[in-house]
Amino acid sequence: MPDINHSALMNEAVNEAKKGLAEGGIPIGCVVVLDGEIIGRGHNQRIQEGSVIKHAEMDALENTGRLSPAQYRACTLYTTLSPCPMCSGAVRLYGIKYVVIGENTTFQGDETFLKSEGVTLTIIDDPTCIDLMTRFIEQNPALWHEDIGELE
Amino acid sequence: MPDINHSALMNEAVNEAKKGLAEGGIPIGCVVVLDGEIIGRGHNQRIQEGSVIKHAEMDALENTGRLSPAQYRACTLYTTLSPCPMCSGAVRLYGIKYVVIGENTTFQGDETFLKSEGVTLTIIDDPTCIDLMTRFIEQNPALWHEDIGELE
Repeated sequence: MPDINHSALMNEAVNEAKKGLAEGGIPIGCVVVLDGEIIGRGHNQRIQEGSVIKHAEMDALENTGRLSPAQYRACTLYTTLSPCPMCSGAVRLYGIKYVVIGENTTFQGDETFLKSEGVTLTIIDDPTCIDLMTRFIEQNPALWHEDIGELE
Repeated sequence: MPDINHSALMNEAVNEAKKGLAEGGIPIGCVVVLDGEIIGRGHNQRIQEGSVIKHAEMDALENTGRLSPAQYRACTLYTTLSPCPMCSGAVRLYGIKYVVIGENTTFQGDETFLKSEGVTLTIIDDPTCIDLMTRFIEQNPALWHEDIGELE
């Protein structure tokens, strides 16, 4: 991974999460970084768009637009929360090699799968990310279970 | 899986693939079935919408709209092509238990992963599905590689 400032880029993912929360949505955000520059950003759209596929990572990839297979291999995802199986699958599909994760305390996605695929994961353990999700899950357990497909 | 008519439902997925082709898109289609009824349908939207996340399965799930975790567990996906890692991850996220696949000759997705997760796969080996993709890949190799994230 290039020598870049993780905390500044994670802060942009956090800004996306906060934007989602302000819209009444689930506070998870993501930015797509290529050569140290943010080329796409997004946040969970379950409430806002009624989307079942636009988790933060997916929304950010969608907003980034079409890239070549070679470009994807040079991208890093900054996501405020550990990626679920769907988002991990998208990382694998596109051969993304680096994922920086805000926190994996409130939810742990498919990190074992990603590591087995050779993806480098960096866990920031960011208190703001943890706080956003802790509050949201406490206040919206049914919605959270829907978002991760878990029976209550 | 309920005793239902696979070929009639797969035919609806094929109709989605053909619709995509007529729009100038990649000919892969999918329908979501609950209790023997189609509750959502879609097709690959890479060309039409410039989407990098709307593979056929994802488009069909998105068009189906929000379901409860329990509802997803009772759904069957009918897809004309073996599901890629992203779509397989979505199947895992939502706990979908049955996937009926038109063909896995032109592309084999994450079938091993899905089986290891307890998903029942039924391969139809449908000649129309094979023919649609064989022709498309021959005529559009770069586009196809982009769709599955593979370097040429």
